[in-house]
Amino acid sequence: MPKLLGVLGGMGPLATADFMRKLTELTPASRDQDHIPALVYSNPQVPDRSTAIMGRGESPLPALLDGIARLQNAGAEAIAIPCNTAHYWYDEMAAASRVPILHIVGSVCDLLRERGIDSGAVGVMGTAGTLHTGIYQGYLQRSGYHCVLPSDTEMAELVMPGIVSVKAGDLASAKRKLGDAARRLGDRGARMIVLGCTEIPLALADASPEATARYVDSTAALAQACVAWAHGRRGTAET
Amino acid sequence: MPKLLGVLGGMGPLATADFMRKLTELTPASRDQDHIPALVYSNPQVPDRSTAIMGRGESPLPALLDGIARLQNAGAEAIAIPCNTAHYWYDEMAAASRVPILHIVGSVCDLLRERGIDSGAVGVMGTAGTLHTGIYQGYLQRSGYHCVLPSDTEMAELVMPGIVSVKAGDLASAKRKLGDAARRLGDRGARMIVLGCTEIPLALADASPEATARYVDSTAALAQACVAWAHGRRGTAET
Repeated sequence: MPKLLGVLGGMGPLATADFMRKLTELTPASRDQDHIPALVYSNPQVPDRSTAIMGRGESPLPALLDGIARLQNAGAEAIAIPCNTAHYWYDEMAAASRVPILHIVGSVCDLLRERGIDSGAVGVMGTAGTLHTGIYQGYLQRSGYHCVLPSDTEMAELVMPGIVSVKAGDLASAKRKLGDAARRLGDRGARMIVLGCTEIPLALADASPEATARYVDSTAALAQACVAWAHGRRGTAET
Repeated sequence: MPKLLGVLGGMGPLATADFMRKLTELTPASRDQDHIPALVYSNPQVPDRSTAIMGRGESPLPALLDGIARLQNAGAEAIAIPCNTAHYWYDEMAAASRVPILHIVGSVCDLLRERGIDSGAVGVMGTAGTLHTGIYQGYLQRSGYHCVLPSDTEMAELVMPGIVSVKAGDLASAKRKLGDAARRLGDRGARMIVLGCTEIPLALADASPEATARYVDSTAALAQACVAWAHGRRGTAET
């Protein structure tokens, strides 16, 4: 039997479905049996990650640790979490886990390098929580990139409202806001733009080929790290 | 906490991702926390269902029963199986399960009635295994419909090759074959056409509005039955 991948999802649920689709599409396969077996715990009731980081809500950590324990107890041999913001609690989750947790930001760095980008200005769009914690800034700067972020106004008027629109199922409105925020990062010199919240690729799925060529989709990056893990290859995502 | 839905998936894995997306889209929600928690066991290694029914391969029943047991042991309170052909073993799975298994064909009948169709000719496309077992024919005839099926030649040249193309990731080729098979059922009098294999809606996702209006998507029907279950409403899918 191939190794069982655990997925701690539901943050949000549409992003988890998108992750499962990308995991399937990125796996070389000609029939069902070639695909990676997975156990997905989609728990949309995990308290909002950004709100907690900004000091205005309940911590999601107990729910995250409960999810890690459930997946492990059910036989998962590695765990992926298709939510960037939840990676703020990565160290606590990794300490509580007997199996490796693939790191979404590490997988984004692997994908940047695979696309031939190993320095220069890289834009990052994510939740207020993700950007506040600095996980992308730290990882990217240590890897030799210069990080370009949305301004406070762009976060308040474009990025966060765009993410909220995806969670409410309004992809058309989300696309306008998030596409605009991405263009502004490009105008400020970003060669590539990390879609560093797994809701964002849902809104920008049918962007123009020129825009898409600049996007680095964190959901697809994590899925690719899972395919590498299943096939016994290691990358930065496995720490 | 809301009730935990179990999903026995991976047959195929892309259909399971599509089911998760439709479950999310059909749930009335404005934020993550409004969605249905789910535990999805995606096991693409289940032996091929059609091949077994046609007497040419290993039975998937032990793998299906193992999946049901895993989901139950992990706390699932009802189970959905986004694979029509696997419902040939419904009685054995239901007998082994302490929790209800929502029936995909029952959910299709509920959706037909909800769309105002309660008699007349209904076309069904599915795997050779599904059509051979007669589960759709029996259910539809008992519910007052007349069943229109693809001919043996259409099954061999259009429907089965179309389903195999989806499993191999070639959606464009699948769309031509399955769209052609659906048109032929319409030409023979079918008012509505059941997409009675969860791979088929993946290929016909961007069909014309006229064609889409006639399709009854078994994946969406099952997702809708799960939303009804989560919200305490009962339908034919819960037997």
